[in-house]
Amino acid sequence: MREYQEKAVLEEDITEIIKAGQFAPTNRNNQAIEFIVVRDQQTKEKIFEIVGQEFVKEAPVLIIPVSDTTQTKCPVQDLSVASENMFLQATALGLGTVWKALKMEDAEEEEDKIRKLLEIPEQYMVINIIPVGYPKEKPIPHTDKDFKAKKIHHEKW
Amino acid sequence: MREYQEKAVLEEDITEIIKAGQFAPTNRNNQAIEFIVVRDQQTKEKIFEIVGQEFVKEAPVLIIPVSDTTQTKCPVQDLSVASENMFLQATALGLGTVWKALKMEDAEEEEDKIRKLLEIPEQYMVINIIPVGYPKEKPIPHTDKDFKAKKIHHEKW
Repeated sequence: MREYQEKAVLEEDITEIIKAGQFAPTNRNNQAIEFIVVRDQQTKEKIFEIVGQEFVKEAPVLIIPVSDTTQTKCPVQDLSVASENMFLQATALGLGTVWKALKMEDAEEEEDKIRKLLEIPEQYMVINIIPVGYPKEKPIPHTDKDFKAKKIHHEKW
Repeated sequence: MREYQEKAVLEEDITEIIKAGQFAPTNRNNQAIEFIVVRDQQTKEKIFEIVGQEFVKEAPVLIIPVSDTTQTKCPVQDLSVASENMFLQATALGLGTVWKALKMEDAEEEEDKIRKLLEIPEQYMVINIIPVGYPKEKPIPHTDKDFKAKKIHHEKW
């Protein structure tokens, strides 16, 4: 979802979304993910200046999951799995989200800037920003028509 | 889940699990993930020789998701998100799974060996093996008691 209503998002819904992220499996159960919740408009504007995309300013809430790289060998996997749980929980609550990736080309620069802005300690990895809000349009769910059986290979490629 | 019953897993359940993986969001909607399904005991033994872990031999089915690195800049994220969807779908069907990561220290070697064994083209990334079977023990779901509110930071760290 890239367009959000102005309608406020309940704090308890944000908590449920983060809970889904916290309960996601992590490499050797490291549970080293923490979450920054941004509602302040000025901070959202500053994040927009770093990563672009109008929806970063427009979504009522941004959640930034971060992983302590001193406690996991797989921070990208851990953060990705947690993010997907958060997407699914948000959708279940009627909310919309999108994965705003920090650009790969200059990922470290964007990551550093976000860390500095939000005062996140150096050892935490940031790979994405998750806006949360009521979507302007209802997404069309996937159906079996979208399923591609030819992408399944039996026993070997 | 690391211990599985011998009870057979229906092909239609495997299809539903893969469908959940296929319908996962991917970077710029690349949809570049394909899936190898292994049921052959000899192949499972060979995979065990590469990656270890008894459950690799014992689970009735192994699913190996792979991502075409010529079509995505974020194969690790894409595969992680798809894997989580597959875990959730498997759980919803009463099945158990676990993320068997290819070891990070010699990941490329393990990845190469798996690719050769299953005849997966070079350009596809492999990060994990997903065993599927009926679990010997029912997992205890997370409850609010496991939730750590102190891992949420408001506005900044």
